[in-house]
Amino acid sequence: MSRVLNVAVVGATGVAGQQALVSLDNHPWFKVVALAASHRSAGKTYREAITTASGQLRWACQEPVPAWANDLLVQNAEDLSLDGIDIVFNATDGDSAKILEPKYARTTPVISTTSAFRYEDDVPIFIPGVNLDHAPLIRVQQKNRGWKGFVTPIPNCTTTGLAMSLAPLHRAFGVSGVVMTSLQAISGAGRSPGVLSLDILDNVIPYIPKEEEKVERETQKILGTLDDSVIRAADFPVSATCMRVNVRDGHTEAAYVGLKKRASVDEVADAMRAFGKDLVALNLPSGPTQPITVVSDPYHPQPRADRDLDGGMTTVVGRIREDRLLPNGIKYVLLSHNTKMGAAKGATLVAEYLYKAGYLS
Amino acid sequence: MSRVLNVAVVGATGVAGQQALVSLDNHPWFKVVALAASHRSAGKTYREAITTASGQLRWACQEPVPAWANDLLVQNAEDLSLDGIDIVFNATDGDSAKILEPKYARTTPVISTTSAFRYEDDVPIFIPGVNLDHAPLIRVQQKNRGWKGFVTPIPNCTTTGLAMSLAPLHRAFGVSGVVMTSLQAISGAGRSPGVLSLDILDNVIPYIPKEEEKVERETQKILGTLDDSVIRAADFPVSATCMRVNVRDGHTEAAYVGLKKRASVDEVADAMRAFGKDLVALNLPSGPTQPITVVSDPYHPQPRADRDLDGGMTTVVGRIREDRLLPNGIKYVLLSHNTKMGAAKGATLVAEYLYKAGYLS
Amino acid sequence: MSRVLNVAVVGATGVAGQQALVSLDNHPWFKVVALAASHRSAGKTYREAITTASGQLRWACQEPVPAWANDLLVQNAEDLSLDGIDIVFNATDGDSAKILEPKYARTTPVISTTSAFRYEDDVPIFIPGVNLDHAPLIRVQQKNRGWKGFVTPIPNCTTTGLAMSLAPLHRAFGVSGVVMTSLQAISGAGRSPGVLSLDILDNVIPYIPKEEEKVERETQKILGTLDDSVIRAADFPVSATCMRVNVRDGHTEAAYVGLKKRASVDEVADAMRAFGKDLVALNLPSGPTQPITVVSDPYHPQPRADRDLDGGMTTVVGRIREDRLLPNGIKYVLLSHNTKMGAAKGATLVAEYLYKAGYLS
Amino acid sequence: MSRVLNVAVVGATGVAGQQALVSLDNHPWFKVVALAASHRSAGKTYREAITTASGQLRWACQEPVPAWANDLLVQNAEDLSLDGIDIVFNATDGDSAKILEPKYARTTPVISTTSAFRYEDDVPIFIPGVNLDHAPLIRVQQKNRGWKGFVTPIPNCTTTGLAMSLAPLHRAFGVSGVVMTSLQAISGAGRSPGVLSLDILDNVIPYIPKEEEKVERETQKILGTLDDSVIRAADFPVSATCMRVNVRDGHTEAAYVGLKKRASVDEVADAMRAFGKDLVALNLPSGPTQPITVVSDPYHPQPRADRDLDGGMTTVVGRIREDRLLPNGIKYVLLSHNTKMGAAKGATLVAEYLYKAGYLS
Repeated sequence: MSRVLNVAVVGATGVAGQQALVSLDNHPWFKVVALAASHRSAGKTYREAITTASGQLRWACQEPVPAWANDLLVQNAEDLSLDGIDIVFNATDGDSAKILEPKYARTTPVISTTSAFRYEDDVPIFIPGVNLDHAPLIRVQQKNRGWKGFVTPIPNCTTTGLAMSLAPLHRAFGVSGVVMTSLQAISGAGRSPGVLSLDILDNVIPYIPKEEEKVERETQKILGTLDDSVIRAADFPVSATCMRVNVRDGHTEAAYVGLKKRASVDEVADAMRAFGKDLVALNLPSGPTQPITVVSDPYHPQPRADRDLDGGMTTVVGRIREDRLLPNGIKYVLLSHNTKMGAAKGATLVAEYLYKAGYLS
Repeated sequence: MSRVLNVAVVGATGVAGQQALVSLDNHPWFKVVALAASHRSAGKTYREAITTASGQLRWACQEPVPAWANDLLVQNAEDLSLDGIDIVFNATDGDSAKILEPKYARTTPVISTTSAFRYEDDVPIFIPGVNLDHAPLIRVQQKNRGWKGFVTPIPNCTTTGLAMSLAPLHRAFGVSGVVMTSLQAISGAGRSPGVLSLDILDNVIPYIPKEEEKVERETQKILGTLDDSVIRAADFPVSATCMRVNVRDGHTEAAYVGLKKRASVDEVADAMRAFGKDLVALNLPSGPTQPITVVSDPYHPQPRADRDLDGGMTTVVGRIREDRLLPNGIKYVLLSHNTKMGAAKGATLVAEYLYKAGYLS
Repeated sequence: MSRVLNVAVVGATGVAGQQALVSLDNHPWFKVVALAASHRSAGKTYREAITTASGQLRWACQEPVPAWANDLLVQNAEDLSLDGIDIVFNATDGDSAKILEPKYARTTPVISTTSAFRYEDDVPIFIPGVNLDHAPLIRVQQKNRGWKGFVTPIPNCTTTGLAMSLAPLHRAFGVSGVVMTSLQAISGAGRSPGVLSLDILDNVIPYIPKEEEKVERETQKILGTLDDSVIRAADFPVSATCMRVNVRDGHTEAAYVGLKKRASVDEVADAMRAFGKDLVALNLPSGPTQPITVVSDPYHPQPRADRDLDGGMTTVVGRIREDRLLPNGIKYVLLSHNTKMGAAKGATLVAEYLYKAGYLS
Repeated sequence: MSRVLNVAVVGATGVAGQQALVSLDNHPWFKVVALAASHRSAGKTYREAITTASGQLRWACQEPVPAWANDLLVQNAEDLSLDGIDIVFNATDGDSAKILEPKYARTTPVISTTSAFRYEDDVPIFIPGVNLDHAPLIRVQQKNRGWKGFVTPIPNCTTTGLAMSLAPLHRAFGVSGVVMTSLQAISGAGRSPGVLSLDILDNVIPYIPKEEEKVERETQKILGTLDDSVIRAADFPVSATCMRVNVRDGHTEAAYVGLKKRASVDEVADAMRAFGKDLVALNLPSGPTQPITVVSDPYHPQPRADRDLDGGMTTVVGRIREDRLLPNGIKYVLLSHNTKMGAAKGATLVAEYLYKAGYLS
């Protein structure tokens, strides 16, 4: 912890990249020293790169543009020099990531918000508090690929809250199956163009391409066990329906969970509340004080009211009750902040953990 | 069909009552001749009764106030004279209905949008096309209670679309269990005060009191079988989570259905499309031309785009796909217009059927 | 009126073009026989051209796609053959219009929803009911430019309601100055990408590029007088602030009007109500029954409640009251349907008038 | 400044009262020691008083309920004991305020968010930074009425931003007339029931009862001069149209201002930026660092993006440009946070000033 690490943010002009800048602003351990994006932005100052011809600032965060970012020159992501860079945060789209991330990883650790490498066998998908015991797979990945760096993606923002809420149940009672319907915020779609206002006003969009498959697959991998250099995916099926609603930030999810061992509503709540004490004990700068916040008011969690609890890094769970259908069924509603814990701030938390655990030096 | 029946609308100043007036406007068989509401409105013209002191018209429908309604005098529901009245549409709240409906039913058939009598053993909950074979229970009810009239409630607006979509599956393949998450429109909450704008803007409310219990119980009753003067409820469990979203009209529901007999996605779609031909053949004035409309565009059904299809009387189903969790599982998204098929216009359709079937004369 | 005219719609895949198809569906006088758009759509059927790779239909109207349009082949607008075409409706963007419209006009009348030619001296900007006496300028244009056809644009959708409401005041009392603040619907921005949902949820955008200049200039031209082959613009200043609000359709405008001659609130309302009887007398298929609808409920006009009055072709005016600031000041709130009267349906009404007046044969 | 003052908050369960609690949370000078509301809440703890029978917390602020408030007993406002109380914050409705405030003022200073006393000749309406030189009127009021305390209301939340932005213009150039159209947030209507979601979704409501009259009258009084114990109202007319839009917090206003002396856009911006340095110099705990923030991006101010600048206590002004109509006309768009500067936090700032100026001891 003796020196500050130098960070490059790639895809810095997009929504996920902007969130990365905000999550790294005033960070005690990390300092952004390089920004990169597509060739269209290369050579401009960051401020110029996010300002349209008509003078409009294309900035998607509630927090202002960090002052130090305005005058940084944006580099071309394809030619980015990694001399002196300790970590890359990659926030491009997935297609670009497939090309860029292996290039960067030859020399440098890459924390990614994209799905490009999520489904590779030697790539862990980290959620701090849930599966940091998958970290040794990083060494396998480096050996396999001959890389000095590595790639660790965070999950899809819809997976994050679900996997977080399932983790204590899986550990304490065993999960036998999951049904989940999501009501996802518009910020999850980015902003170029993201969700069009004509499409979402007074409306619900009942389909988000590839989202359900991602949630089903990632949840099983994240809750799987690392066993002799291989992650054995959790064996319970997950069935999801992913929808878009007219909410800015915060994914709401209705979950129905079959358990292997019967548990009361109180036991479920207690297991959730107790979860993640090891993460909290690490005292990471971006970490939550309470990884899962259980609320008793039946009208909560609500995205607008609750998404910013604990810096947007806690998963809020409410309405825990028995389910009539699944074996030893439990159902609840969860809320996870898709652009905090589910995106760049979650990636920052992963980087903090990896630093403490010795993977970044 | 030789004469026009005289109708009284009770609870005429509320949202459900207003919708009743609209659904009965220009009706070929029914004519509204009496309006009733609480003592606060009694003695006023209908126009006066729905206009606030500051001159604001409290009218919740997109359609204008039917011209004939403006000058009708509103009677006190407690003293309503039923001389010459052939049918009562009751749209009060449930507590008032418990007192008023039995009083009216002594002499006159009551079609109700309230839950007051839904769970009584001798009361059928009709959805036209689904369970009109429960109609003989009306005679049992009349005998039991010594009434010349009767009470038939329609279901909760969230039950309607679910039960409609399940009916063809239950008949063709057998249903073994249902999980359902609803995204309900704000109009379902009425308007005094209904949902407050401060509560729903940029938000989801994950709880609607008593709604889940209603859906679970009513679905089983509606899809049950009338057997020797008793409805045997369908034996599959239903597990629901009911939420409110910022949509004006149209309840969207994600359903996951276990089947007793395996069926492909195409077989499910075909069964739904073929359903309700008997209802359509009756050619009722408020009936749909297609009780269930199956769409293939994965981005639909959407409430704003699709709720008004077929006069708001069809249930729109899309995204039919296999479910990984439930036995022979199928999942889909449905949309039902909560203030048309799910409310007064649905009640009007019930009345039309009962008239044709000889229960109203 | 003996034969049906053949119409080509150019820019048919965009929002304005889609509205044109809807406004021409089942038209008694006009029949769409050709569709054109950019080279990207050329050669596809219309249905294909408006369907994305992931199967999503990009259709912006509440009305369904007219059945006859689905299988029409889309032509390249640059090579569009006008053989047998009696009228072109052009709904491209303004830059394309500058090139395409003069090309088409060499042989064929062009009704345009773009601003490309609005500010040319020999081009009238028609609002039916307001300034059809500018029609002789068409002959001047044809002579000037050596065209057999001509170009007549409709105004910007924000101008339409303002100019309509000012016309009776200008005639009866004289207008000395106008202040106008608009609250414009998101559909006015089109949909590629139009207004992003992240930008407008829980928000107001206080700027729409070039909009204020258009309103100020067009209003003066439309209310000007044709005098010896030249339109003398009305001499009163117009000062506008144009904002975007989270409303789907319907522009709301707060107007403050100085009059040359004092008029009471009642006199103003009477002048508005009486306005446009000559237009109504023409009995045009798309015309309103009442060009200006004056309402007395102070809570109206409201976009959602009132925009569809009279087929979206009436300007709804309410809250008429005295203004303390401008000389003989009057203020009011108006509502105009930006995608009906303010767009393609308004253009259709112009075509209907020109047909009746002998300019299209 | 040697001791902490004891505060009673009356109307503590309503929206304005809740905001008062938040604005006084952790205050360095003031401590809330008593809460009062209507007899319905009297005797309950505060937490109980704001929780519904079904367990829903009726809390309107984004900030959580201050921990110290939960267990305070709510008193009946009519019997509130003022022993040991140094200041009353009154946030009841206006009718109650007419009775309660004079009662309290017999012994104790009352800072009020209501309109009950705003239009009395001996009552100043304070906006810190604008008219604290009206403070000597407090002594006149005390003498007139024989009170040891006094009543000072803050303005209507729509007046606040307008008067703030006009103040530097009035001082530097003289104002000759103002036209203002407001786009007001739903939180301005409170929440019992406030604005109904069915009324505002996809809509604008063009009328807010009494609002325009308040703005016109209060602006003139606030910008008037205290002259021999009487406030001479500013002599320029104000003409307003007040509308409601679907925005949570932050009133947007389009202002058109006639000046007595010509000023360029830059001179106007400079005068605004320089305004209020005397207020800032006082270093009050709730005060802004910049009373008026002038922005150059033409797409701003936007309520969601800008309302929380400077703790919600700055008035944000953008789009300053010349106006074609009014003499030496200037127009601009302003944004003022209606539930911060325009409500309880503004009242707290008034109290802070009065304390420093010696009126509270």
